[in-house]
Amino acid sequence: MAPVSDYVKIDKNPSLQVTADHRIEVVEAPIEKPGSGKVLVHIKTTGICGSDIHFWKSGNIGELKVLGNCILGHEAAGEVVEVGADVTKLKVGDRVAVEPQLPCGKCFLCMQGDYNLCQDVEFSSVYPYDGTMQRYKVHDERFLHKLPDSMTYAQGALVEPVSVAYHGVERSSVTLGKPAMVAGAGPIGLCTLALAKAMGATPLLITDISAKRLEFAKKFVPEVLTYQIDTTKTNQENAVAIRKIFGDSEYVQPPSVLECTGVESSINTAAYVVRRSGVLTVIGVGRGDINNFPFMHLSLAEIDVKFINRYHDSWPACINLIANKVINVDSLVTHRFPLEDADKAMATSSDPSNGNIKVVIED
Amino acid sequence: MAPVSDYVKIDKNPSLQVTADHRIEVVEAPIEKPGSGKVLVHIKTTGICGSDIHFWKSGNIGELKVLGNCILGHEAAGEVVEVGADVTKLKVGDRVAVEPQLPCGKCFLCMQGDYNLCQDVEFSSVYPYDGTMQRYKVHDERFLHKLPDSMTYAQGALVEPVSVAYHGVERSSVTLGKPAMVAGAGPIGLCTLALAKAMGATPLLITDISAKRLEFAKKFVPEVLTYQIDTTKTNQENAVAIRKIFGDSEYVQPPSVLECTGVESSINTAAYVVRRSGVLTVIGVGRGDINNFPFMHLSLAEIDVKFINRYHDSWPACINLIANKVINVDSLVTHRFPLEDADKAMATSSDPSNGNIKVVIED
Amino acid sequence: MAPVSDYVKIDKNPSLQVTADHRIEVVEAPIEKPGSGKVLVHIKTTGICGSDIHFWKSGNIGELKVLGNCILGHEAAGEVVEVGADVTKLKVGDRVAVEPQLPCGKCFLCMQGDYNLCQDVEFSSVYPYDGTMQRYKVHDERFLHKLPDSMTYAQGALVEPVSVAYHGVERSSVTLGKPAMVAGAGPIGLCTLALAKAMGATPLLITDISAKRLEFAKKFVPEVLTYQIDTTKTNQENAVAIRKIFGDSEYVQPPSVLECTGVESSINTAAYVVRRSGVLTVIGVGRGDINNFPFMHLSLAEIDVKFINRYHDSWPACINLIANKVINVDSLVTHRFPLEDADKAMATSSDPSNGNIKVVIED
Amino acid sequence: MAPVSDYVKIDKNPSLQVTADHRIEVVEAPIEKPGSGKVLVHIKTTGICGSDIHFWKSGNIGELKVLGNCILGHEAAGEVVEVGADVTKLKVGDRVAVEPQLPCGKCFLCMQGDYNLCQDVEFSSVYPYDGTMQRYKVHDERFLHKLPDSMTYAQGALVEPVSVAYHGVERSSVTLGKPAMVAGAGPIGLCTLALAKAMGATPLLITDISAKRLEFAKKFVPEVLTYQIDTTKTNQENAVAIRKIFGDSEYVQPPSVLECTGVESSINTAAYVVRRSGVLTVIGVGRGDINNFPFMHLSLAEIDVKFINRYHDSWPACINLIANKVINVDSLVTHRFPLEDADKAMATSSDPSNGNIKVVIED
Repeated sequence: MAPVSDYVKIDKNPSLQVTADHRIEVVEAPIEKPGSGKVLVHIKTTGICGSDIHFWKSGNIGELKVLGNCILGHEAAGEVVEVGADVTKLKVGDRVAVEPQLPCGKCFLCMQGDYNLCQDVEFSSVYPYDGTMQRYKVHDERFLHKLPDSMTYAQGALVEPVSVAYHGVERSSVTLGKPAMVAGAGPIGLCTLALAKAMGATPLLITDISAKRLEFAKKFVPEVLTYQIDTTKTNQENAVAIRKIFGDSEYVQPPSVLECTGVESSINTAAYVVRRSGVLTVIGVGRGDINNFPFMHLSLAEIDVKFINRYHDSWPACINLIANKVINVDSLVTHRFPLEDADKAMATSSDPSNGNIKVVIED
Repeated sequence: MAPVSDYVKIDKNPSLQVTADHRIEVVEAPIEKPGSGKVLVHIKTTGICGSDIHFWKSGNIGELKVLGNCILGHEAAGEVVEVGADVTKLKVGDRVAVEPQLPCGKCFLCMQGDYNLCQDVEFSSVYPYDGTMQRYKVHDERFLHKLPDSMTYAQGALVEPVSVAYHGVERSSVTLGKPAMVAGAGPIGLCTLALAKAMGATPLLITDISAKRLEFAKKFVPEVLTYQIDTTKTNQENAVAIRKIFGDSEYVQPPSVLECTGVESSINTAAYVVRRSGVLTVIGVGRGDINNFPFMHLSLAEIDVKFINRYHDSWPACINLIANKVINVDSLVTHRFPLEDADKAMATSSDPSNGNIKVVIED
Repeated sequence: MAPVSDYVKIDKNPSLQVTADHRIEVVEAPIEKPGSGKVLVHIKTTGICGSDIHFWKSGNIGELKVLGNCILGHEAAGEVVEVGADVTKLKVGDRVAVEPQLPCGKCFLCMQGDYNLCQDVEFSSVYPYDGTMQRYKVHDERFLHKLPDSMTYAQGALVEPVSVAYHGVERSSVTLGKPAMVAGAGPIGLCTLALAKAMGATPLLITDISAKRLEFAKKFVPEVLTYQIDTTKTNQENAVAIRKIFGDSEYVQPPSVLECTGVESSINTAAYVVRRSGVLTVIGVGRGDINNFPFMHLSLAEIDVKFINRYHDSWPACINLIANKVINVDSLVTHRFPLEDADKAMATSSDPSNGNIKVVIED
Repeated sequence: MAPVSDYVKIDKNPSLQVTADHRIEVVEAPIEKPGSGKVLVHIKTTGICGSDIHFWKSGNIGELKVLGNCILGHEAAGEVVEVGADVTKLKVGDRVAVEPQLPCGKCFLCMQGDYNLCQDVEFSSVYPYDGTMQRYKVHDERFLHKLPDSMTYAQGALVEPVSVAYHGVERSSVTLGKPAMVAGAGPIGLCTLALAKAMGATPLLITDISAKRLEFAKKFVPEVLTYQIDTTKTNQENAVAIRKIFGDSEYVQPPSVLECTGVESSINTAAYVVRRSGVLTVIGVGRGDINNFPFMHLSLAEIDVKFINRYHDSWPACINLIANKVINVDSLVTHRFPLEDADKAMATSSDPSNGNIKVVIED
């Protein structure tokens, strides 16, 4: 057993928990001992994700249901304060980003490299697996990734949403020197935009229903073109207007469109924007079924539709990107709260009127 | 100018034409002279496709409309009877299969090898481009493919539907030694089944709403498993029943499902059958938009959806497959009519009660 | 702890061991107890591989060295006779094929699905990891694959060389309806030929330096074309002669050539046969460095060169192929010996004059 | 016929020609009339390529031989001064970059999108096809690409070497957030480095035998790591030293190594640097055959080797990259000469002592 850190007194563990009856509360949680291959991490920063809000307000995401108390949070970074037996690559004091999943390692999906699709995955913050909105969390060594000294904990926490976008762009057809479009200027859409730029896609265009979000996007990536979805228009009319911005011919339309809203009208609009033989990558899915999905159009144009579910093997690459200043996602953090005020952080994150992009909880 | 064949008197050209007011009629058509790079082919066999029936009965397929008289037919083989200037690889007497498209050769889609997606393609039987239900048709040399002596004209005509299936399976994830499912036991579904078998997918399963079609499929590929869609069940229930045939675990489900019906319920059922991280390939599309397409499921399982539009570069491979007896599609031809009775052939093809799979017109 | 089989008395464990001083001997070996996740298998059949002979005669393969006694053999199938704790998918009496590797499961190569490339892999028969030429072997449950009742143990053992070929063809560009060439008609070349046929490649051609081996190949796959390498010719001259068999134009040359000899002249000949924009897949590598590798030619023709190292995720697919009679590899077994005569089996396998393809040891 | 430009008097056509007996001379050449689909371009800038020097000094590159007088140059941009019949997308006064190839458009390689591999390609500056070191050149409209007003002719000419690099990186495994290495800091190596950076590869490392070239590379891409090849070391020793710069573990080694020297020792060193399961992309090939190519190593590590031959479909993307300031290649131009002094430009380019990277000829 590795030695317990002596510079920190591990005695209190405040946490933000969601309840089965749709409440959130800051309560003291027990502190686990790290077993073999496990590490106890002092969580320094957790970002709030839309799914945290969704679990709180709706009690479920699809078939994932909050059946009892569960600590929320899965965008996190912190400091190692204790290591269990057989831990070989981490030591007390190491600064780490948390990859918040633990796949089984044995099923065919794990064996073939798609461990994000493991059906027995233990995902932090999905009931009954506690998340990172607590001071001390035990996590598997393999899913903790060292942060260089140059990176802040907030940057370490942002590796999670950047990873969602990373898995999206790596499965997409974003191509050096060719146009790309991102639908949705929320946190995932903005991370996706940053990565599409980092891959050399050009020109870039982002859409949203909100002028304010597009303004934010424009500050975030100044060269991006923007289009505000006109809700009085049909999906096809919006698509025609977007295509006009790219230019006159089929050739200059984006071979890669990345959908980050999960909203039906946005998805169907995106489907009409993709260039013939291109790829529509659906990064955000918000509801079970989609209507009016334009099959005939997709078929005639041979447009592939790809879906993503979280990420695999993305932390080291995303840490590289931030540490080596290929991308800068600092400005996504618009609000900060101490761990003790995690409930206020959640309330702020759930309020669309305050212009928040990413609210983080710090300790 | 190459010499006109002297063993055939080219004087009559009966043809089957569809009219803008939804009639078909056998009428005499003018005989074109083959220009530079063009060849005059005596069409010996044309198979009738569902789209021929659709143009007749509905007057359109999506945005493709019958605005005037047009000769139908695009599944054809025949004999070269005259060659134009600059024709170098064909000569009078050559037996050829017709690839019924003429792309522009200049747009980015043609340049990148996706000539089937060319927006200026001239496709035989799509108004205003006359098809192959006539005795003499002029066609571009590049899109005529020599048949070996061992192949019949009927086999040559079948290269077209086999090509649709070929383009489908080459874009799919059909894999040696792994399961595959085909939805729909019509001509395209059966060709797709034959090719999935030829690629070594195993076990194979085919679905249809008709017990009779499944029986035909079972005779066509004896080792295939069959499942008759139960219209009293939901899509998910049918999917569960199909999955049970493959076996108990996620692992033994098909990573490749090939949809050949174009029917919404079949598409959505297929989407639930695909193994996690697999691919749904949509070969047949019958209507504009699809409802209840299960996005959340596809997203969690990271199932790619691929679409196809016709074919490119498939004739030589499909001719190889038939000539070298890797596949045998002869039994698909259930009815034969002489060219003069092309209207009766059309009527037979349009009648679901007679058990026809492929009706061919011969001359 | 699961119960020990009661129908078998586990008391003797004869084994075939190679020594550091280049001898082989049949000696009694201790019987291990299966730990957690482990299974004790009564090895019923082991095939002899060229690498077994190589370890015996040369004492090494590249950097893999025989530094002490080691039980040889890694092509095996047998019966489960005891299961350790936490074993969930196997029980006593199950018939299994052995995937003879145990990767670490933690490194990036394991995580990304390339567990065959794991640098800490424990490979059966590579010193110091004992192989399957013994009666009782402990093996990890995850790397034992159930055999259907219809398959023999000899077929189960052949899954290993078939897996080498499977990994080769899955990384290659073997394509339905297009030509393919295999260089080398030894066991791996023949398995590769069988799989290329099973994938629908056509026409097929195999080369070897030995007329006898080509005769065997012709009996094994009657439709295959053969070419006997003429050692008085240069590599390019042999390539020209091979290309002539395929036909006159570049178009009919094989886009996929699979090299299964590891011999420099064969590799360089193969490089000249591949069609422009095709792929040369190197399945067998026999020596460290290669001279006269035709870079300029490969570059002008944009031919990719791919290499393989063993296999991953191939057992279930290969079991499917054999059980469902997509391939039949039975005739590859030319000689059989009881376990007690394993040394004679090795001697027979090492003698090129007796026409052996695959020698198996049975118990 | 489109009107001849009236603001330019087309009467003199100085050109730089190589002769069969290894001389170069500036001579007056006839001015062609643009036929159907052709355009007469006033070449404003031509960059000198290593192959121009090679044709001059050696009289051949592989099987491409200078059998008579031939105008050199194929990195060019200029202004349209006359258009032939049927030219639809260009008009007099348009500024264009020249894609210096004319494939047949009919062979299977053209049809499948690999028109760069067409065996009947007419490549500018390869005897007997005249190049761009002349004032007025006729070129096919399809292979002229409009330049935006913001781009200089020198930038337009640089699209050609950038295209070589583009085709290299698009076929490579350069990946966002992962390391990459470029071997060779000449013009192609530097363009490749710029594109690897533009794709978000990080960290980046470049090697060369010359400290001066590495200095230039460091100014060109300040964050790049450099390694000067030590000619007293073996290839493997140099590879070990390079790997040490990337870091301690296999994991942090580059999955993508791009070879841009064509030199055997550099190629073999590069082969030892690639991370297991990575890709070695060979962009520059300087000689026919390669010795000591480490097959055993490549096989155990499953490293793919890819080759490239020129480019296809790259001009629009590369123009986008330069015009939208994703890359800046201006500083590659180290020397400029007027067309009348093209011979002096050639002499300067051929002299390694003057530190030239790219010498351009302007008019």
